[in-house]
Amino acid sequence: MTTIRIMRPDDANIAGNVHGGTILKMIEEAGVIISTRHCNSQQLESCAAVLARVERTDFLSPMSIGEVAHVSAEITYTSKHSVEVQVNVLAEDIIKGKKRLTNRATLWYVPVSLKSVDKVVEVPPIKYLRTEQEEEGRKRYDAQKLERMENKQKNGDWMLPAIDTEPYTVRYSQSSLIHLVSPSDCVLHGFVQGGVTMKLMDEVAGIVAARHCKTNIVTASVDAINFHHKIQKGCVLTVSGRMTFTSNKSMEIEVFVDIDPVLENSKGKTVAVTAFFTYVSLDKHAKPLSVPMLKIETEDEKKRFEEGESRYQQTKAKRLAQAQHQ
Amino acid sequence: MTTIRIMRPDDANIAGNVHGGTILKMIEEAGVIISTRHCNSQQLESCAAVLARVERTDFLSPMSIGEVAHVSAEITYTSKHSVEVQVNVLAEDIIKGKKRLTNRATLWYVPVSLKSVDKVVEVPPIKYLRTEQEEEGRKRYDAQKLERMENKQKNGDWMLPAIDTEPYTVRYSQSSLIHLVSPSDCVLHGFVQGGVTMKLMDEVAGIVAARHCKTNIVTASVDAINFHHKIQKGCVLTVSGRMTFTSNKSMEIEVFVDIDPVLENSKGKTVAVTAFFTYVSLDKHAKPLSVPMLKIETEDEKKRFEEGESRYQQTKAKRLAQAQHQ
Amino acid sequence: MTTIRIMRPDDANIAGNVHGGTILKMIEEAGVIISTRHCNSQQLESCAAVLARVERTDFLSPMSIGEVAHVSAEITYTSKHSVEVQVNVLAEDIIKGKKRLTNRATLWYVPVSLKSVDKVVEVPPIKYLRTEQEEEGRKRYDAQKLERMENKQKNGDWMLPAIDTEPYTVRYSQSSLIHLVSPSDCVLHGFVQGGVTMKLMDEVAGIVAARHCKTNIVTASVDAINFHHKIQKGCVLTVSGRMTFTSNKSMEIEVFVDIDPVLENSKGKTVAVTAFFTYVSLDKHAKPLSVPMLKIETEDEKKRFEEGESRYQQTKAKRLAQAQHQ
Repeated sequence: MTTIRIMRPDDANIAGNVHGGTILKMIEEAGVIISTRHCNSQQLESCAAVLARVERTDFLSPMSIGEVAHVSAEITYTSKHSVEVQVNVLAEDIIKGKKRLTNRATLWYVPVSLKSVDKVVEVPPIKYLRTEQEEEGRKRYDAQKLERMENKQKNGDWMLPAIDTEPYTVRYSQSSLIHLVSPSDCVLHGFVQGGVTMKLMDEVAGIVAARHCKTNIVTASVDAINFHHKIQKGCVLTVSGRMTFTSNKSMEIEVFVDIDPVLENSKGKTVAVTAFFTYVSLDKHAKPLSVPMLKIETEDEKKRFEEGESRYQQTKAKRLAQAQHQ
Repeated sequence: MTTIRIMRPDDANIAGNVHGGTILKMIEEAGVIISTRHCNSQQLESCAAVLARVERTDFLSPMSIGEVAHVSAEITYTSKHSVEVQVNVLAEDIIKGKKRLTNRATLWYVPVSLKSVDKVVEVPPIKYLRTEQEEEGRKRYDAQKLERMENKQKNGDWMLPAIDTEPYTVRYSQSSLIHLVSPSDCVLHGFVQGGVTMKLMDEVAGIVAARHCKTNIVTASVDAINFHHKIQKGCVLTVSGRMTFTSNKSMEIEVFVDIDPVLENSKGKTVAVTAFFTYVSLDKHAKPLSVPMLKIETEDEKKRFEEGESRYQQTKAKRLAQAQHQ
Repeated sequence: MTTIRIMRPDDANIAGNVHGGTILKMIEEAGVIISTRHCNSQQLESCAAVLARVERTDFLSPMSIGEVAHVSAEITYTSKHSVEVQVNVLAEDIIKGKKRLTNRATLWYVPVSLKSVDKVVEVPPIKYLRTEQEEEGRKRYDAQKLERMENKQKNGDWMLPAIDTEPYTVRYSQSSLIHLVSPSDCVLHGFVQGGVTMKLMDEVAGIVAARHCKTNIVTASVDAINFHHKIQKGCVLTVSGRMTFTSNKSMEIEVFVDIDPVLENSKGKTVAVTAFFTYVSLDKHAKPLSVPMLKIETEDEKKRFEEGESRYQQTKAKRLAQAQHQ
């Protein structure tokens, strides 16, 4: 099975090299199609092939925008409950008419029943052209099984937002994302369009709100946003959100956008945009639910809570005034 | 000017409500079109309208997947150097044939010369139907100007990766992103496809590598990856990367993926996937550059560096062995 | 009804020309909105409009990144069970303030009940401004019906790329891609929207054309396309293209879409859609270049070449006739 796709600007970095992640994603898409198709090829239970392991993958040569990627997948071994897929990736320069190998990957899939996701179904055996192939496959199967066993989960000392934070505190729900500016973010001029930044800000605010109240949440309003700095191609945006205030039925989240011009030796980050988002929590019938009160731990948090409360009261007063005028 | 678009699954959360950020992005796209067109409507210097400010925006009613968004933009005021655009958003249920107002927004744009991005060009004046309109617009213009002045940049106490970190340390380049699982991430079954996770992992590893050496970097290899847990719709993935080892011409980055099932009261985060990515740095002619040596600060970092070095030596030995066999 | 969108880098090829497929997808989105809205405009059974046929479409002028596409749709005829939509596409350079017509398309939709997808519901009649309009519409309706009847499904002898092929042969440029249907492809009903399929078809045709002539190529026209089968979520589409005919300045590419319902035990693939795309090759100044002649190797290829030539002559004759009438 072979699939082709042209590499686009958003698939690549600013030097024009296609991201390894784009290629890994295409490899896995080919793998999931061929293995799902195979596992459903007999009159058995409907199932989906789920990726269990990818062997070490080398990137032999960078691919460029405008080149055509050819991704070929083949099933090379089946055990009772797993499928081995080998994938080759070629890059073709269709103008020069040349192809070169860029990747070889091996993926292991396990078929999971569509009715009950914890049930692994049986894999129909494949036919081997040469008998050694089965034997070689079995060796690869045993080797990866052994490695998986040995791979005792290393975790531990990671610098993530503390795991044991108390619920409903600011630290518990605070979140940040990084976004690498892509060509599609800057269409009309060399800078990120404001709408792109606002979408990322709302995404972070929504995650903070959902982490706090663990229900269906929707944006209720956004305070005025000022755009102080132009954001150029190749920058990394860090978008961070923290909860500042909760009323009975709403949450206020403060969002910061930092610009990091990765490729330049700069004097560090600049805060480009800040804003306050207000979210509400909804039940199944789209009625507002009450929101757990934010637990304040520091003086700074207290100060921000009070400022949030004062914005909340102002908005309420303005709405009341408008309603009376109408 | 009105623009129309059907709302898709990827525009919405798992409850089917369209993200506020999707709507903000459509609003800004309408704003940038109408204001860029207006600022170029006379035979003056070519320019692009850049978003300077968005006034407070309320979301009056959530929009759903399958509804059609109508975004109408109108220029309501022009000063010498800025354009005010007012945008209304309606949601239309095309099956039931009903429309309702969901948003009203006001955006301020500044036209920037395409030749010299620091030069603001003059805005052609609009004609007002009623003379009061100009006066009312001027009041809004003055009010927002005042607010922008007052908006002294709040920054300070933010929990970002420390700003004063020394270059080439682990802390300097470590990065993490959050990703809200979307329907497109889970096409064949209810779980995130492995390729989606790998793409995010490579994205973080690439940012860590770029932050470390500030050059054009590309993925050279990925060590075997095991997928321990299924990741469901509505989860938030935190993908974190830190540099573990540098050789003369390569960098090894360790990447962790944590799953946070936001909407459920779970026992906290689970590490779903970990992997080692190797990156190299390239010059303009795609030749490898030497990589600044990683500065080690702690015992843990030292231990990880040595482990990385041992993986590096093993891979090197294997390659040599393969080369001799051929 | 008019919709507007800025063209982005991912909408275009590396020379900056917007893919014909991007435009076809926008055309179909406008068509599906206006026809679904119309078919639900009376208090009858809820339904979704499903694309049944697109008439031959010419691409009059290439569109570029940063231009704004205006897509206007209008219902021009209704029969008992179908809706004819005519769509015009304008490209606007908002910096220079100029618009030009780039496409005119005619689409036929059939309203399918949302309760039972095999049931076609009745279309509310439209009002005609002039009585001739109804008569003219009926003629177009009868003509397309006749053509659809005649369109016996061609399939058969399809094959995959051979690697060591001679340039300019059919085998050298033939290509196929695979696409896993995602939820975003099926927004309004459970089926893939016609525009999604057309965009993929154009992508393959473009790769075939680029491989053949190794220059910047753009879509010049698409022959009428009939949509024979509904395509459901979770299917895998294989889209294959092969060159059938070259004139001095144009290439004709035949494209097939096969549906493979991966998760079900089906009787194999079904050909869902076929179409002929015509491409031209452009130099830097957007002037047509001459195209290398297709090398014919088999009897089937010869037959298809002659059929292509006859379509080419017919189109040429029609254009001449139209020009003389004006």
